[in-house]
Amino acid sequence: MFNIGVIGYGYWGPFLARNFNNHTQCRLTAISDKKEDRLEKAKQQYPHVRISKDLAPIYAEDVDAVAIATPTSTHYELAKEALLHNKHIWIEKPMTSTSAEAQKLIDLAEKQGKLLLVDHTFLFTSAVQKLKELIKDGVLGDLFYYDSVRVNLGLFQHDVNVVWDLAPHDLSIVDYLIDEKPKAISACAMDHFHTGREDIAYLTLYYDNNLISHFHLNWMSPVKIRRTIIGGSQKMIVWDDINPAEKIRIYDKGATIESRRGEYGLRANYRMGDVVSPAILEREALFSEVDHFVDCIQKNTSPINDGASGLRIIQLLEATDESIRLNGKVIEL
Amino acid sequence: MFNIGVIGYGYWGPFLARNFNNHTQCRLTAISDKKEDRLEKAKQQYPHVRISKDLAPIYAEDVDAVAIATPTSTHYELAKEALLHNKHIWIEKPMTSTSAEAQKLIDLAEKQGKLLLVDHTFLFTSAVQKLKELIKDGVLGDLFYYDSVRVNLGLFQHDVNVVWDLAPHDLSIVDYLIDEKPKAISACAMDHFHTGREDIAYLTLYYDNNLISHFHLNWMSPVKIRRTIIGGSQKMIVWDDINPAEKIRIYDKGATIESRRGEYGLRANYRMGDVVSPAILEREALFSEVDHFVDCIQKNTSPINDGASGLRIIQLLEATDESIRLNGKVIEL
Amino acid sequence: MFNIGVIGYGYWGPFLARNFNNHTQCRLTAISDKKEDRLEKAKQQYPHVRISKDLAPIYAEDVDAVAIATPTSTHYELAKEALLHNKHIWIEKPMTSTSAEAQKLIDLAEKQGKLLLVDHTFLFTSAVQKLKELIKDGVLGDLFYYDSVRVNLGLFQHDVNVVWDLAPHDLSIVDYLIDEKPKAISACAMDHFHTGREDIAYLTLYYDNNLISHFHLNWMSPVKIRRTIIGGSQKMIVWDDINPAEKIRIYDKGATIESRRGEYGLRANYRMGDVVSPAILEREALFSEVDHFVDCIQKNTSPINDGASGLRIIQLLEATDESIRLNGKVIEL
Amino acid sequence: MFNIGVIGYGYWGPFLARNFNNHTQCRLTAISDKKEDRLEKAKQQYPHVRISKDLAPIYAEDVDAVAIATPTSTHYELAKEALLHNKHIWIEKPMTSTSAEAQKLIDLAEKQGKLLLVDHTFLFTSAVQKLKELIKDGVLGDLFYYDSVRVNLGLFQHDVNVVWDLAPHDLSIVDYLIDEKPKAISACAMDHFHTGREDIAYLTLYYDNNLISHFHLNWMSPVKIRRTIIGGSQKMIVWDDINPAEKIRIYDKGATIESRRGEYGLRANYRMGDVVSPAILEREALFSEVDHFVDCIQKNTSPINDGASGLRIIQLLEATDESIRLNGKVIEL
Repeated sequence: MFNIGVIGYGYWGPFLARNFNNHTQCRLTAISDKKEDRLEKAKQQYPHVRISKDLAPIYAEDVDAVAIATPTSTHYELAKEALLHNKHIWIEKPMTSTSAEAQKLIDLAEKQGKLLLVDHTFLFTSAVQKLKELIKDGVLGDLFYYDSVRVNLGLFQHDVNVVWDLAPHDLSIVDYLIDEKPKAISACAMDHFHTGREDIAYLTLYYDNNLISHFHLNWMSPVKIRRTIIGGSQKMIVWDDINPAEKIRIYDKGATIESRRGEYGLRANYRMGDVVSPAILEREALFSEVDHFVDCIQKNTSPINDGASGLRIIQLLEATDESIRLNGKVIEL
Repeated sequence: MFNIGVIGYGYWGPFLARNFNNHTQCRLTAISDKKEDRLEKAKQQYPHVRISKDLAPIYAEDVDAVAIATPTSTHYELAKEALLHNKHIWIEKPMTSTSAEAQKLIDLAEKQGKLLLVDHTFLFTSAVQKLKELIKDGVLGDLFYYDSVRVNLGLFQHDVNVVWDLAPHDLSIVDYLIDEKPKAISACAMDHFHTGREDIAYLTLYYDNNLISHFHLNWMSPVKIRRTIIGGSQKMIVWDDINPAEKIRIYDKGATIESRRGEYGLRANYRMGDVVSPAILEREALFSEVDHFVDCIQKNTSPINDGASGLRIIQLLEATDESIRLNGKVIEL
Repeated sequence: MFNIGVIGYGYWGPFLARNFNNHTQCRLTAISDKKEDRLEKAKQQYPHVRISKDLAPIYAEDVDAVAIATPTSTHYELAKEALLHNKHIWIEKPMTSTSAEAQKLIDLAEKQGKLLLVDHTFLFTSAVQKLKELIKDGVLGDLFYYDSVRVNLGLFQHDVNVVWDLAPHDLSIVDYLIDEKPKAISACAMDHFHTGREDIAYLTLYYDNNLISHFHLNWMSPVKIRRTIIGGSQKMIVWDDINPAEKIRIYDKGATIESRRGEYGLRANYRMGDVVSPAILEREALFSEVDHFVDCIQKNTSPINDGASGLRIIQLLEATDESIRLNGKVIEL
Repeated sequence: MFNIGVIGYGYWGPFLARNFNNHTQCRLTAISDKKEDRLEKAKQQYPHVRISKDLAPIYAEDVDAVAIATPTSTHYELAKEALLHNKHIWIEKPMTSTSAEAQKLIDLAEKQGKLLLVDHTFLFTSAVQKLKELIKDGVLGDLFYYDSVRVNLGLFQHDVNVVWDLAPHDLSIVDYLIDEKPKAISACAMDHFHTGREDIAYLTLYYDNNLISHFHLNWMSPVKIRRTIIGGSQKMIVWDDINPAEKIRIYDKGATIESRRGEYGLRANYRMGDVVSPAILEREALFSEVDHFVDCIQKNTSPINDGASGLRIIQLLEATDESIRLNGKVIEL
């Protein structure tokens, strides 16, 4: 049984608290936030938990792990302090504001012998687990492209732009699904409200072997779309994350190109086969992630979303910022 | 009453022939193609029309106008010859293989006193006409972005890549809808079949005033999507061209950003109003375009899709090719 | 090569004319209608065809077959006359106004040695052909229910109610797909405009073995829906006829019920397997039906949509009328 | 501040517990269930709450209200006992197994001076509140029909059929939305698993003035559909409850019928206007219902979903059972 404290009870903190509280191997022990109204809400929901403005109850001896759900700019200091208090760390995405900070946390966690998990929740969805299985088993053949659209209205973040807000989801998924790592990145973005925070961005990652991945990230879309198309030489996939019934569809579609003499040099033959939506057992991703967190601590193993993966995402975000600053210049990685 | 001849009876030619044949101001007079099976089919459908392999019946005195529905690489020579035979010209998109050729046709048409129409059919859809009206009337406020996805499986073209095949649709629409012209362009594309013809491409057009337009063009998508999102400061639009019932939806959604002192520098207020699908009277776009062609000839006026607009599209396609060749470099226009 | 005449050039007649004209085994020879504007339109489209107000050119010696696309109340007289002129008959649905008339036409056709086809176009769609194959092969197991929704705004018919207008589609499909014939029928309907023509109706057909089929027919729906759910003990199907990409989906879903002692008498175990959309080659149904018509005439065989099937549909429509008149009383068949 | 006890911690009980626990005016005080594993789960989630197999802690003096979330057959006895212990009652739907029981509970609650609320959660959704407002304001004109489809795979209930399981939702909504009460009812249903519990049913309610309502209820559907179409003389509505973004659409569509002399007696003119999806503020319906419960207790007023409305639903369910037993006979109400 682990005792867990949660720092930050704004948007995501309550979800963490509920999942920790419902897990049979966890005991939600302490919640901390700077705002009175949030503390009141926490007291109403968890009368048996230590609720406080200061962090002392979080750092108390009986707490084994700390979850950090505060603005990104505060992650590094809070995680460092918690590690120095010998706590395992669950940290929200993006991991830190800079790759230098991320590296320092990785080093400190290793030195303290503590586990460091970056909350890339999507990796624990049944859909991404299914995609991982399909790609690993070679069902798609050679990967051609990964095209992702993640758009909605809001939520504008205080301290990051749309890329730092939304891209960690997609970049962590791509990092998990595709073994090969990108060789270059380019991005363009617009700041329509002159806030210094871009609200729409397009990202492109270039890989070897003609593989490309592309991301449309948008806080100013009138509709919510979370749809990824993955093209392969053997099969193609559409993952529609807001379809409650059939998130993943596998298309037995493709083309082969035939060279021919004569008038027309090329001829395409199309394969238009069946479409299959595999049955997927739905679970709450966050609950599975808590499971994984507990399991890794107990077995002293590294989570799939460890500090190293968190760092890789931060490095991509920094390269994205640079490409945007240089008006879409392709940045070698 | 105009007499019209059609050159090319492959995929698109039969649509042209049917619409000319059904129009009360037109008389379908001649059809020409190089393939026997297509000529047989034309004879079956139009026993009263001159069907031939050679072009003499097309260039006969009684023919007033010629529609050219052949591969792009043949457009220039055929259109030039037809103009020299004093025919009005209807030419498929893309207008020509190079901007130099396009300019020569414009000049020749002017010299011959003949009308030159480039078949950008989408401009004549009820949806694009409605979008034009909404944008012209300022309903959207300041334009923020134009995001277009036009993807499907196939049809690989013999003589052009996915950009030259699909982008003329979108670029002609944007050229028509947005008065301001783009200042720069960048593109990336992949040629997965090593045919020298890219099958997937992303295009970005940069405008002044923080406006951006972006296009996903794909021959290798397992699903057909033709969806455009247009973001504005006052309203936003989703145009889903394969929704038979409600192609256009107008969202009274947006955000205003408030600067504030203190802990958080920015605060977004969201406007989440109604969604309206305006009633749109469906017509066959191609029939409306034939109407426009006839009307412009009769009144000696210039069509909205004249040679100059065709040329602008070719110039954008050439800049796209250059950006792709230079690995995504931003090309100033 | 067959020469064919078309009587009636209103809504459906032009579709018939086009498909006959495009078929290599047919020659569209004559078109007749009572309205001048329709005759003008026919002349524009088919300058080589005999167009007339009177029926003499239809009944001329060189005409082999006649297609009747006029209001239902005129079907019997026109078909009778055409049979007496020794023509094969293509007749629109519903076949006639009464089952007595339908029987007379069947008898007369037999006597004259002519083919009689009732235009139940849906039977020739790729979707219904696929359904037929799946049901015949026993893929669904025991049939549990057939639930159909066919609703839209309009078109109000002059001489029939919504049942006689829309139900022939569904009843002919069910008659074709399900070998077993219904034992009883009930229906309720409303006439909101006091025209004597009901605009919304619900039909239920009762079969042996716990099979039920149910139809929602509606001229006053704000949306167009054409969706059928077929439940079976092994598989279930959703056929969405307005989905252009995936009309049929086969669900490996179901339940088995286990009797148990103790507190709860029953326990359901659910099977939640994959969903498959089989690849279906799209063809124009009407063209396939013309093919079938030509083929049956040439081989002197009976079409799947012969007079007997047309008569069975009329009998069901008459029973429906009776049930509506008796306020939903169940009518034994 | 009210103290509340929950009896039954199976499927729905945990939702009740969470909403009571989160409401600032409620204190979740006791939870009771007969099953050990459920009690364990409750203890994990609410360490501060009295968890027990027996009902004594529920009936303790400090508890003000009791929520009953057990199988239907137990509702009457449990509610009676709780009323005799002077508790306000929140009871799941369907209220009781018979209308006689429902009437007795109403009488007892009145005698004890306690509030009795039947949990018809749907009435508290933003969608139903919006529909109520639109209908009350006369936006739809005369009501023509109410067509509801509520189908899914499972959950088979132990002690009721699909009608008693699903119809209370729809009947309570119709009872709330439409002032006029039905005059007759008919129903047909099938019991495919020979369990004595029908798994598919169709219900029809007949009203004066040509109004009809119809319900498709199905536990054996491969897909989840919750869609209602409401036809009116002025406007029509589609309410799609599983569309997360636009649950309600208002169609400015309809027809007027014109009587004419001459060949055709009737002519329909269609109105095909805009479609509007009104902005709806999403709230959790159950939380709003808890609010209403608390508010009615504090103000001593009657809830919109009081015992009388619960009784009306039970009466309709009993008439449905009778019609099914009599093979679809229309039952006068």
